[in-house]
Amino acid sequence: MRTQVAIIGGGPSGLLLSQLLHLRGISSVVLERKTKDYVLGRIRAGVLEQGLVRLMEEANVAGRMHREGFVHDGTLVAYGDEMFHVDFKAHTGSGVMLYGQTELTRDLYEAREKAGGELIFNVEDVEIAGANTDCPQVHYRVGDRIHQLNCDFVAGCDGFHGVSRRTIPTDQKREYEKVYPFGWLGILSETPPVNDELIYSNSERGFALCSMRNANLSRYYIQCSLSDRPEDWTDHAFWDELKRRIPREQAEAIVMGPSIEKSIAPLRSFVCEPMRWGRLFLCGDAAHIVPPTGAKGLNTAASDVQYLYTGLRRFYEDGDMEGLDSYSAKALARVWKAERFSWWFSSLMHRYPDQSMFDHKMQIAELEFLRSSDAAQKAMAENYVGLPY
Amino acid sequence: MRTQVAIIGGGPSGLLLSQLLHLRGISSVVLERKTKDYVLGRIRAGVLEQGLVRLMEEANVAGRMHREGFVHDGTLVAYGDEMFHVDFKAHTGSGVMLYGQTELTRDLYEAREKAGGELIFNVEDVEIAGANTDCPQVHYRVGDRIHQLNCDFVAGCDGFHGVSRRTIPTDQKREYEKVYPFGWLGILSETPPVNDELIYSNSERGFALCSMRNANLSRYYIQCSLSDRPEDWTDHAFWDELKRRIPREQAEAIVMGPSIEKSIAPLRSFVCEPMRWGRLFLCGDAAHIVPPTGAKGLNTAASDVQYLYTGLRRFYEDGDMEGLDSYSAKALARVWKAERFSWWFSSLMHRYPDQSMFDHKMQIAELEFLRSSDAAQKAMAENYVGLPY
Repeated sequence: MRTQVAIIGGGPSGLLLSQLLHLRGISSVVLERKTKDYVLGRIRAGVLEQGLVRLMEEANVAGRMHREGFVHDGTLVAYGDEMFHVDFKAHTGSGVMLYGQTELTRDLYEAREKAGGELIFNVEDVEIAGANTDCPQVHYRVGDRIHQLNCDFVAGCDGFHGVSRRTIPTDQKREYEKVYPFGWLGILSETPPVNDELIYSNSERGFALCSMRNANLSRYYIQCSLSDRPEDWTDHAFWDELKRRIPREQAEAIVMGPSIEKSIAPLRSFVCEPMRWGRLFLCGDAAHIVPPTGAKGLNTAASDVQYLYTGLRRFYEDGDMEGLDSYSAKALARVWKAERFSWWFSSLMHRYPDQSMFDHKMQIAELEFLRSSDAAQKAMAENYVGLPY
Repeated sequence: MRTQVAIIGGGPSGLLLSQLLHLRGISSVVLERKTKDYVLGRIRAGVLEQGLVRLMEEANVAGRMHREGFVHDGTLVAYGDEMFHVDFKAHTGSGVMLYGQTELTRDLYEAREKAGGELIFNVEDVEIAGANTDCPQVHYRVGDRIHQLNCDFVAGCDGFHGVSRRTIPTDQKREYEKVYPFGWLGILSETPPVNDELIYSNSERGFALCSMRNANLSRYYIQCSLSDRPEDWTDHAFWDELKRRIPREQAEAIVMGPSIEKSIAPLRSFVCEPMRWGRLFLCGDAAHIVPPTGAKGLNTAASDVQYLYTGLRRFYEDGDMEGLDSYSAKALARVWKAERFSWWFSSLMHRYPDQSMFDHKMQIAELEFLRSSDAAQKAMAENYVGLPY
């Protein structure tokens, strides 16, 4: 089998890239290790930057997002019983779109299927060969059958644990990592969100985040120990702890209900340089991970897709390699800034086991400066709504 | 002997307070452990915020500063061979005044002596008694003679190692501290400064700062190990290392010459809460220390003096204790923000022994964000020129 672009991974990055290429007449095959239902069962982020919104529009998959998504023009930041508003719209001219990654992925699947896109599921034993030649091949197995996919380029959209990054020889890449000494315990609950906008809260007892999916679906998180397991936390214990970590007025307004999903995610910062090896291009989590504070995960994947899509178009439309040659440098320049923002916001909002009283005072002083300075709020807003592509 | 305000410490804070009080007819006695020559021999900071400039004007000691000082409307920030300008004036409407602390102290001594101010030198064995009563007394010895100074209030302007903070019982105060794992090796050199404005430089080899006192007196610093001694560093070795830590173009422009002073200062963040105990009020280094990055040491002392002076005036002019009662809270609110800025700027610019490659990348990403964002530069400028009193 032959295609122009082999896309490893059927998550949002791979699907979005595939759809964008399709609309420009560039063929691709998407190889996914799991089933579609499995992919759609993953609960992920839900805050989309304008860049991703525009990319969804360009991919003709923005209809339901615009109908059902919620535009947030700002966010709330709390510490103790103090709380203040950061107005993204006033500072940058734009807000962010609240729309679950699951829904976005569903829309992309629908579009790809409607267009007859090649999506292959249950793909195992993927190997990328000849990535540093002009004729890369992807070998894989589905059930008992071994396949070979010949292609011009390989897009590695297969996440942190995928084969794509591992394909780059160790001496050809450099990896940067920070593992945070805590996790996020998150629940989904079919209750109205406590607030129209998100609340990020730094409390003596640890971080909490009040987020939402829609008018009757709330997403709440609390910082937890890495040794905790979701089953250690009853719904009652979760709500109780959440309410102790947000300002009193908000705590009293919380509508509790049974959780319909409960899980713990570790927090990690990770970057692999470069994001290209020969004709293999890494996209999204395959190349970089951010802690979820600030919601940059899906959004950095989207900017990678944008750069790669542009590079591939230039190659197929004009025979010009420049966009592909500059892909890694361009993508990384933006990724590092998003990494910095996510690290800064995480550092500001969490309690650290080895934090001194001085360190804690620095957090409070920074929150008070942020509260008092328009310029500091603008710098935060620029990052939150997304730096320019 | 009796006075209204006993001032412990004849450095710039104590002298400035004494002079301001004098102009309002409030009497004070300044007790200094060393001699005037010793105090004037200490090389210290030289970047004054507008708030301190105005306070010097109010104290009628601003003449020489305005004639001989240099107004800097911005600063340069470098990393590797990259360098960018932060325009304080454009962002905040004001710049900073370059005028050595030694010169400022000299002006204050001259004014106090001209006015017949009581300055007592070589004061030993200072003890503050009855600070939590209405009649505090300061006991001290000069040579063989023991003295007692009765007063209404005691201003503790005697620095980090002074007796004032130690007078507050341990269970009545809380101390916050961070010690940085490096020092600053600084030299004074009778050579023209390499640049009109300061250059703060983050380099692979550690931090460097190009500062100045006047058109033919340069002040340069490099980050050094805490185990280094000044005599380990020949002038040649210093210049060599400095040039390797600043952008090439600047390194080539440096005019070298013999050092006329060479010393190593450790870096520390420290805050004592509260800054008042009964009728004892701590000012400046007695209550808080900042690392020198960002030049906030003398400037936070000045805002303390301003708050204390205002409180004392209200007491003596209107019998109103409110300004004194709110002194500690007001001073600390501003101090913590200056502590945060100094900690942030230090963290951004130095190499840390335990720094990971990821941490270093965060510094570079933050510098690149600062370079690219007007809002981030404005937030920095607001802090550098000084937050409002």
